[in-house]
Amino acid sequence: MSEPYPYDPRTYKPLKFHEATARFRAGTDTPRAYLERCLEAIAAREPVVRAFAALNEAGARAAADASTLRWKRAQPLSAIDGMPLGIKDLLETQDMPTEMGCAALRGNFPKRDNAAVWALRQAGAVILGKTVTAELGGAEPGPTRNPFDPSRTPGGSSSGSAAAVGATMVPAAIGTQVGGSIIRPAAFCANVALKPTQGAINRGERQATSMSTHGVHAGCIEDTWQVAIEIAERAGGDRGSPGLFGPRHPPAAHKPERLIVLETAGWERTDEATRSGFERLLRELEGAGIQLLTRAAHPLVERLETALVNAAAVATAITQWENRWWQRELVNSQPEGVSARAKAVLARAEAMTLGDYRAALLEREAAQLSHARVAHLADAIIALSCPGPAPAWSNATTTPRPTGDPVFNYPSSLLFAPAVTVPQLSVRGLPVGVQLMGPMHFDARVTAIARWLSSLPAIIVE
Amino acid sequence: MSEPYPYDPRTYKPLKFHEATARFRAGTDTPRAYLERCLEAIAAREPVVRAFAALNEAGARAAADASTLRWKRAQPLSAIDGMPLGIKDLLETQDMPTEMGCAALRGNFPKRDNAAVWALRQAGAVILGKTVTAELGGAEPGPTRNPFDPSRTPGGSSSGSAAAVGATMVPAAIGTQVGGSIIRPAAFCANVALKPTQGAINRGERQATSMSTHGVHAGCIEDTWQVAIEIAERAGGDRGSPGLFGPRHPPAAHKPERLIVLETAGWERTDEATRSGFERLLRELEGAGIQLLTRAAHPLVERLETALVNAAAVATAITQWENRWWQRELVNSQPEGVSARAKAVLARAEAMTLGDYRAALLEREAAQLSHARVAHLADAIIALSCPGPAPAWSNATTTPRPTGDPVFNYPSSLLFAPAVTVPQLSVRGLPVGVQLMGPMHFDARVTAIARWLSSLPAIIVE
Repeated sequence: MSEPYPYDPRTYKPLKFHEATARFRAGTDTPRAYLERCLEAIAAREPVVRAFAALNEAGARAAADASTLRWKRAQPLSAIDGMPLGIKDLLETQDMPTEMGCAALRGNFPKRDNAAVWALRQAGAVILGKTVTAELGGAEPGPTRNPFDPSRTPGGSSSGSAAAVGATMVPAAIGTQVGGSIIRPAAFCANVALKPTQGAINRGERQATSMSTHGVHAGCIEDTWQVAIEIAERAGGDRGSPGLFGPRHPPAAHKPERLIVLETAGWERTDEATRSGFERLLRELEGAGIQLLTRAAHPLVERLETALVNAAAVATAITQWENRWWQRELVNSQPEGVSARAKAVLARAEAMTLGDYRAALLEREAAQLSHARVAHLADAIIALSCPGPAPAWSNATTTPRPTGDPVFNYPSSLLFAPAVTVPQLSVRGLPVGVQLMGPMHFDARVTAIARWLSSLPAIIVE
Repeated sequence: MSEPYPYDPRTYKPLKFHEATARFRAGTDTPRAYLERCLEAIAAREPVVRAFAALNEAGARAAADASTLRWKRAQPLSAIDGMPLGIKDLLETQDMPTEMGCAALRGNFPKRDNAAVWALRQAGAVILGKTVTAELGGAEPGPTRNPFDPSRTPGGSSSGSAAAVGATMVPAAIGTQVGGSIIRPAAFCANVALKPTQGAINRGERQATSMSTHGVHAGCIEDTWQVAIEIAERAGGDRGSPGLFGPRHPPAAHKPERLIVLETAGWERTDEATRSGFERLLRELEGAGIQLLTRAAHPLVERLETALVNAAAVATAITQWENRWWQRELVNSQPEGVSARAKAVLARAEAMTLGDYRAALLEREAAQLSHARVAHLADAIIALSCPGPAPAWSNATTTPRPTGDPVFNYPSSLLFAPAVTVPQLSVRGLPVGVQLMGPMHFDARVTAIARWLSSLPAIIVE
């Protein structure tokens, strides 16, 4: 294992499961051996990174052995048969507790699999552990540290999923996003990640909001897509949604002709170094013959930017309102088991009126209409995934956003849009992601463009 | 209490809570006394009707006493302060178990309130008991019998809610519908009921499908509306839905100018006597100057009828697919605790492909578009609520539809349309409902027209 600090995209070697399957076929490697390498990485890194809320090593070894037999017989269940995975601890798993990073849920163990977890097992995946989530998917951080600098946050709320992938403990992990909980931590931890179209992956039993999605963190775009499509082919999408559309194998890289550059409210909060890195990337894209459409260049882009000015407030209002009943029940049943931060969020939710909520829904719908109007202008939207490298780890109640600022992530959540982040920037020794977004159900196209983007050398800002 | 058999709409006296509140104000009656009368009716009728899965008499008495004090001080929390209510046992209640009519869930007691139940308590309502549901909201019947003939089913799956209201044990009860689980049992038990626009009432923690709604059974249209709006004003709609729209008090009766008469696939299955009764009603409506649009009269009505030909199969396919993961988990964890009927449904669900589900979603969407096209043609749609009086009670596994045929109910579920049933027919001594339906979010208009319809004398077919 190479020294992880500082992050250098030229030497960093993420896990790529899809490269192992040829070896499984050839008999020069096995899923069990792959798992043992993951367990070694966990043994080496976990004491500092603390990505896992629970591990099931025995269950994982048994699953990896069964997978090894299947590959030996040339009868794998899928292209991810034998892949060790982390599952964000908001999703239920039949063999591990589901505590949601919340003291009130300590020992919660419903002994059933979330639909996505069920699908992963059907595909032969090895469910290795539950990854740490910020409390209830909110902002109160868990113990996880950034794998590239343990004084920093890995981001949240999918903290453990992002950190476990970034620390090469597992090739992929499942996260969830309501505001910025997949793309932001992935961007802080040098992951590739897909937050799919709203509803594209079955959330199963999970009590979640109208903007919540399951998504995939991985070391490369091929694994990201493969995990997503294997789940969706078996468990479909959310109730009422047609589920993820796209090919059974990772879409080929696609070079776009035109990209919309979205500043969002995040651009003003972006540090100088990250700005300069993103601008260098844009110049390289132009140099490669790609036309860039900015807010200055097209009134419909300007209108979309304007429609997203309040994205954070709108997304927050919707999420708070939708969470208030079950969070109230939780606080009532175990007042000491919920953080002061989560209680403050609940108090704001309970100060809302139905009229406030309806106004936020209308503003979301207006933003979605503005987004639909730009669909024909370009192949995709490009933006930063975060306003800079991961900030310092803190669990002080006075820290406003202890897992980092989701300002660049509210847009795709609010627009129900597929988003893919790739670790295309390195800023002062830390990873920073760049994301591509597209219209609903264009997950495969966004993935194909992200694949092309990730074939470029990363921009390094010293 | 008058002899309940046979049903005679001229003498049957449903409970009307809204008539009691003037007495509460005047001090000539109290919520506690109202509750005691309900408890007397329960003592008299429950041994045969068996509407309740659980009762909390002590809790209800305490709540009624608190309400009595509030009315005495002229400070009721709402127009339904003190109203005793039954809650379908699919919804969680903090003071009673939630067993969903399923042996596998015996003793399940999460000790929290569904968002709608929470809202009802906030409005001062008295949560008296949990009402029997067919197993898991499906077809396997509970013990409940029809209050107008104990040899017959009350309908399902909201069996206990419909029977408790029909037997004047409570003035109102909460039901849920996915296919036909509110409107059908209400129609069999002489209830008024509202199945609102999809999403209009917050389903809270309830794991349900893309066509599931909470709704209200009551003895009169005023109480139906008042309960619905009191919930919606406090707990809003489902995540992502703006919630129920309409006035804070029951909308005034509205006489329509034009009604679309929808046959649906149910007309062919309707018995002679019920057909003749419905046709008499239509002649009376025409006599009152209302224009009726049938499939023969307008090609867009014919198109809607055609789009709904497969409503049962489409609705069933969608529901089965969306239920398969949690029902599989339940069967896996307690194989003996789930009926053979439910297991057969699960087997059919597991034989479906994602493509089957997507095709069903497209067919639902096509029906919704056909519905949107008729919205300007008339004030509302009128149809039977059921193809005849309640059939015999049976729990034989060979009985195809032991809680009756939902053929007239799939359309409103599939269309996400508000539907109100009123007990406007009496067929050979048993109640038969007539329903009004309208476009999404026109719940108040449909209610206003139903109120006008219910002011007509019922049609009696001897």
